[in-house]
Amino acid sequence: VIKILTGNSDFIESLRGKRASFLLAMSYSRTCDIEGISYFSSFSNYHLKPPLDAEIITVGDIRSDISLLNDMTKYTPTPAFITRAIHQIMPFHNIELINLGVKSPEVEYFELYGFNFLPSGNITDGANIDAMDVFKKGLEFGKTYDIKDDYIVLAESVPSGTTSAEALARALGYDVKGCFATALKEKTQIREDAIKKALSKIEASDDIFAKASKVADNMLIFYAGVVLSLSYRTKIVLGGGTQMAALLLLINSIIDVMGGSFDSHNITLITTKWIAEDKNSDIKKLLNMLDFNINSYYSDFDFALSQLDGLKKYDSGEAKEGVGAGASLVYGELHGLDKLTITQSIDKTVLKIFQKYKEV
Amino acid sequence: VIKILTGNSDFIESLRGKRASFLLAMSYSRTCDIEGISYFSSFSNYHLKPPLDAEIITVGDIRSDISLLNDMTKYTPTPAFITRAIHQIMPFHNIELINLGVKSPEVEYFELYGFNFLPSGNITDGANIDAMDVFKKGLEFGKTYDIKDDYIVLAESVPSGTTSAEALARALGYDVKGCFATALKEKTQIREDAIKKALSKIEASDDIFAKASKVADNMLIFYAGVVLSLSYRTKIVLGGGTQMAALLLLINSIIDVMGGSFDSHNITLITTKWIAEDKNSDIKKLLNMLDFNINSYYSDFDFALSQLDGLKKYDSGEAKEGVGAGASLVYGELHGLDKLTITQSIDKTVLKIFQKYKEV
Repeated sequence: VIKILTGNSDFIESLRGKRASFLLAMSYSRTCDIEGISYFSSFSNYHLKPPLDAEIITVGDIRSDISLLNDMTKYTPTPAFITRAIHQIMPFHNIELINLGVKSPEVEYFELYGFNFLPSGNITDGANIDAMDVFKKGLEFGKTYDIKDDYIVLAESVPSGTTSAEALARALGYDVKGCFATALKEKTQIREDAIKKALSKIEASDDIFAKASKVADNMLIFYAGVVLSLSYRTKIVLGGGTQMAALLLLINSIIDVMGGSFDSHNITLITTKWIAEDKNSDIKKLLNMLDFNINSYYSDFDFALSQLDGLKKYDSGEAKEGVGAGASLVYGELHGLDKLTITQSIDKTVLKIFQKYKEV
Repeated sequence: VIKILTGNSDFIESLRGKRASFLLAMSYSRTCDIEGISYFSSFSNYHLKPPLDAEIITVGDIRSDISLLNDMTKYTPTPAFITRAIHQIMPFHNIELINLGVKSPEVEYFELYGFNFLPSGNITDGANIDAMDVFKKGLEFGKTYDIKDDYIVLAESVPSGTTSAEALARALGYDVKGCFATALKEKTQIREDAIKKALSKIEASDDIFAKASKVADNMLIFYAGVVLSLSYRTKIVLGGGTQMAALLLLINSIIDVMGGSFDSHNITLITTKWIAEDKNSDIKKLLNMLDFNINSYYSDFDFALSQLDGLKKYDSGEAKEGVGAGASLVYGELHGLDKLTITQSIDKTVLKIFQKYKEV
């Protein structure tokens, strides 16, 4: 069932039955090198997680690094499985991939946009992003993007992305204490220390882009540009949780400084129940900090009907969101899928890949 | 199951799997002021029923007048619930609203066409419509309409619309005795008296539009224009019962007088079983009066599997059709929905709204 987070039901109702393009931005922040900071920081090759997510959603296979599956069984299956499972029973009309600094996924026949960006650096040493360049490339992408469907879902796969998102929001001066989620059950002191260290490098004279250069990640900056230029031409779903809220806060700050007007009428954020009802974060509070109104929604889907223990970990607070899982669940529901049908498809999708490479 | 009313199965088969735009014309006739004439004449605010129907089908909520729900529980849930229920499990690609003289529905994000028409008057005093103006605006709408899908469903919500439809058909000289349906179980003497009084105002010198000005309603005249200009460019489903048949009779008369040719190849009428098998009306006879051939169909759906007594009243002859219910049922069946799935969705849709505002 689709629930309202902020705003009213009209925006989401207008998407019922509509065709969507699903865009996945793949990026990572070397902040993930810090042991224990992130859900993914103990993965042997966390930087291959974004192309792996891309392979899962596009072709239902893992190619870039099979061994990562070992890490995934230790943890919770990536939300890419949720998106893939929806796509198998109620397909998106287009899935496209945006490479913001990762190894390219090993898939043919799917649109792959590349910009030769380097990965975002570890924020404790300065993320070292040419933020203005990344932002301009995002603006240009949104301006020239060939619209193929009724609306566009912008999703992301960014290991350690919530840490850079929180660091950015705080660098921009928002009081976001306790608002940001993580893929771990609870936030760690390691994470708080890293953010504090990152923020200590911010200087009073830094403008928005200087701040973003030091503490953000490529996805946040690139998508800010995309949203600003593309939302004039089509409806956009930000498929994600507090990272997408941070993206909106970045846009809010850019508008604030640049003094231009911004029409949020065409933009919505869609996330999961695990984010919307998370006790350790507060996405609603983040969205209410915006100077513009935003309609936002979540699917109340959970894994109560699942046969797989790994997936049930979502219900106890792990993983929560990512790879547009919440937007995909809502997309499925907007096309009439019910909870049992969705659950069975996710179970099957996970089992299929796990059984292909190892015993579950 | 989809049944043939007139013609053969080929037209409807050509719509299988096709995407549809669903257009709802909202209008009312002050004929509804006559107590006991109509299903809706005892509603406290019958003139808000069309925007309410629009709110139900687009956003699954009632906003313009919650108190109308009290009237609805006394009677039978509006057929808007059927259309909404189909839309939730097999969505139309677009739902658009046409305001022909009602309070605008309180929904955002849905296309709403307006023409500043006044409501049609009470036919016993003369409907007082500028029929030529309404017709021309319909022609222009059909000519310039931006076609978004494979075909278009033209549906209506017009309290007291069957009375003006019958009055128009009789004014145009068709022998339609016993042919017209009503949302009440049976036609009343009040209704017959009103029609006779309306017809007494018709003069021998009145042309088609002069007659329509006196006894029709905005929907019939506007849609006649739309069908005449739009059917050259796309397939059109008239979603309704004897009112839509009256619309075709009006077109028939216009063609007859204007001497032009008319290609009915692109037009079909789709209704419910409750109309097609109604003992107190005869839509087939109306369609056979046309000088052109028309393919028409109905869904044999009924509420035998429903858990709700209110809905079962349809099976004993109440409400019957409206808000494109028959066309919606057929649309669902053309996309593979079975009776139980449809029934459960309608039950759920009704319960959800009723429980939101009151105890059922």
